[in-house]
Amino acid sequence: MNARGSLTVVGLGPGNPQWLTPAASAALAAASDLVGYRAYLDRVPATLGQQRHGFDNRSELDRARLALDMASQGRRVVIASGGDPGVFAMAAAVFEAVELGPPGWRRLDIRVEPGVTAVLAAAARVGAPLGNDFCAISLSDNLKPWTVIAQRLRAALAADFVIALYNPASAARPTRLAEALGIAAEMRRPDTPVIFARAVGRPDESVLVEDLAAARSAVADMATIIVIGATTTRRIARGGGIIPYVYTPRGIVTRC
Amino acid sequence: MNARGSLTVVGLGPGNPQWLTPAASAALAAASDLVGYRAYLDRVPATLGQQRHGFDNRSELDRARLALDMASQGRRVVIASGGDPGVFAMAAAVFEAVELGPPGWRRLDIRVEPGVTAVLAAAARVGAPLGNDFCAISLSDNLKPWTVIAQRLRAALAADFVIALYNPASAARPTRLAEALGIAAEMRRPDTPVIFARAVGRPDESVLVEDLAAARSAVADMATIIVIGATTTRRIARGGGIIPYVYTPRGIVTRC
Repeated sequence: MNARGSLTVVGLGPGNPQWLTPAASAALAAASDLVGYRAYLDRVPATLGQQRHGFDNRSELDRARLALDMASQGRRVVIASGGDPGVFAMAAAVFEAVELGPPGWRRLDIRVEPGVTAVLAAAARVGAPLGNDFCAISLSDNLKPWTVIAQRLRAALAADFVIALYNPASAARPTRLAEALGIAAEMRRPDTPVIFARAVGRPDESVLVEDLAAARSAVADMATIIVIGATTTRRIARGGGIIPYVYTPRGIVTRC
Repeated sequence: MNARGSLTVVGLGPGNPQWLTPAASAALAAASDLVGYRAYLDRVPATLGQQRHGFDNRSELDRARLALDMASQGRRVVIASGGDPGVFAMAAAVFEAVELGPPGWRRLDIRVEPGVTAVLAAAARVGAPLGNDFCAISLSDNLKPWTVIAQRLRAALAADFVIALYNPASAARPTRLAEALGIAAEMRRPDTPVIFARAVGRPDESVLVEDLAAARSAVADMATIIVIGATTTRRIARGGGIIPYVYTPRGIVTRC
């Protein structure tokens, strides 16, 4: 056990073990204590003698504080986080806990192990929709007001970013995605491609490409990433009932 | 050799082999032909009997067309791309070539293998600066006019996104980064943290955190990612000459 104690926040990637980096695998295997949302811990192979501390999908700050407390006792703690830990996942909660916590926590060896964040896997499934400037917005409004989310959406639409939406739906806010797509429909053409990518890399994966005009009624849950195309985003039909390729050209040049 | 032919665009991650996913490694090893920028090909372990086709850092469409042409001859082609292939890398060029190319290219088995894009590794090195809504903008203006880039920057600043800048500098446009940071300085506080992360994961890695007011004179090259904090982005001093942690809280709540 490291006398100083350490905490590593590890990105598990979007769910397929083939997308877990060797660095992340090594950090997970070397942990004395593994902390995380239970569904994430279930993805991690067992290591002899390793303690596991499962949590539900809320209580991120509690998870972070338990992990920091164990690290300050000299343990080698890993927090398992979905996708990339820095993108709408556990890393920000850890540093928030550090800032608000005892000064000793600042002297811990705290690291972040990056991972493939969900939108990259979602984009890869259909082509290259993020091929030009893009933004990522979390629709979760339990930590920020909806007015801020709506303002960011409008700004991103006006400046013609491709827009990735994380955390699109939950029981507490079932209408937020429809509201967001409604804002998009005010500012983008009805045939703008919208990608619904659910559970990419897992056995229950599903990927759809819809017209924006039809997208409001599509079903999304917290495992779904939505990508709204820019005005330059294009579809390439493939026929045979296969979903089209979707890509956003690197350049802004009129081509016919 | 697959009679149908295939093309996989593979993300190598930011440069450290420990960040290359097992899926990407497997695709690289299974290729009959490997196409890419020479510096990327140099990172890929040799596979017996594999043909390599190295290019310079321009000519993305030529690279894509060579790869598609070989795939259409039944070869199992892999394009090696930096970071994630869908983020300012080779995937968009491939689909652009498909759309403009012969109809037969649409029937090829074309896949994208996601990777850890550079900004995720850069963010991980300092904490969690992407902890809230963020955008990614390429400063490369050989494919889009500077007016578009400047408009996107202003929109992202006004809506308080964290902003990641890719491709910040080249011999052909040495002043673009200073211009971008100048726009940021009009709209963000002088002490806004700006991260300069160069060659993260490689032996020549360097990571700096600067105040926005001082950032304009910092040195950046095409291997550098810049992250401009949002108004909510915070620094946690650690002392001892170590760079501070930088994170953006998940919530928008006034805390003191």
